[in-house]
Amino acid sequence: MRMRAFQDFYPEHLAQCYGCGRLNEHGYRIKTFWDGDESLTLFTPQSFHTAVPGIVYGGLLASLIDCHSTGTAAAAMYRAEQREMDTLPAFRFVTGSLEVKYLKPTTLGPAIEIRGQVDEIRGRKVTVVSSIHVDGEVTVRGHVVAIQMPESFG
Amino acid sequence: MRMRAFQDFYPEHLAQCYGCGRLNEHGYRIKTFWDGDESLTLFTPQSFHTAVPGIVYGGLLASLIDCHSTGTAAAAMYRAEQREMDTLPAFRFVTGSLEVKYLKPTTLGPAIEIRGQVDEIRGRKVTVVSSIHVDGEVTVRGHVVAIQMPESFG
Repeated sequence: MRMRAFQDFYPEHLAQCYGCGRLNEHGYRIKTFWDGDESLTLFTPQSFHTAVPGIVYGGLLASLIDCHSTGTAAAAMYRAEQREMDTLPAFRFVTGSLEVKYLKPTTLGPAIEIRGQVDEIRGRKVTVVSSIHVDGEVTVRGHVVAIQMPESFG
Repeated sequence: MRMRAFQDFYPEHLAQCYGCGRLNEHGYRIKTFWDGDESLTLFTPQSFHTAVPGIVYGGLLASLIDCHSTGTAAAAMYRAEQREMDTLPAFRFVTGSLEVKYLKPTTLGPAIEIRGQVDEIRGRKVTVVSSIHVDGEVTVRGHVVAIQMPESFG
């Protein structure tokens, strides 16, 4: 039995995101899971996701941090309510703000790990801090304020 | 005679970026120009660049701000040195940090405008503030610290 990722629980009409929607066949379709108290996404960029040859494109890294963090925010809210992710009402988050610091170049080739931690849950806002790891080094740090999606979305 | 964009002057070995490299045939290949003291990029997202249906994917918007800003940084450095962009040495910037605030949803469909202003040039660092406009409204604000690329890059 395959473990279901956070994104596998997104309602169908909110699963079209280019970064994390399982129904967007052009997109990255990232899959995020709990790894203890951290959330974890593994992603292998394609050969053309370059900044310069051999280095991963920073816009892709920002996108991965973004969707990893909104997924983590949803999963964290279920945890806070002690509910399983297949129960209703469904949680889905949008990004209020995204900050990314590029500490060093991210090598293109190996799978990269995006790891997230919930910094704060306050009302409809969840703050997630995250980092990108490749070959055992942290190359990027992210900070996302995710906001529970208004009912009017989608 | 077609006006050349900032990105048309990037050295060939540094023109593979997924966001702004004219030689990356899978990428966005954005084109940025001066519009007075502002820099301007026009970009029309594709139908699958969705956050939710009808709304542009935030990771794409972050990517556009990123590459728009590094391009603006390069052009600003040439301006500061009163040099044309086809003169050597060539300026090329990487992103040190990227901050994006999503003020409201960006409608998917029309061309979006990314407008940038140089906030500060200090040594090898150029700070660029930018905004995304669609249908006459500002939907996103960005703040990028761009750093002149080390010689070892590419």
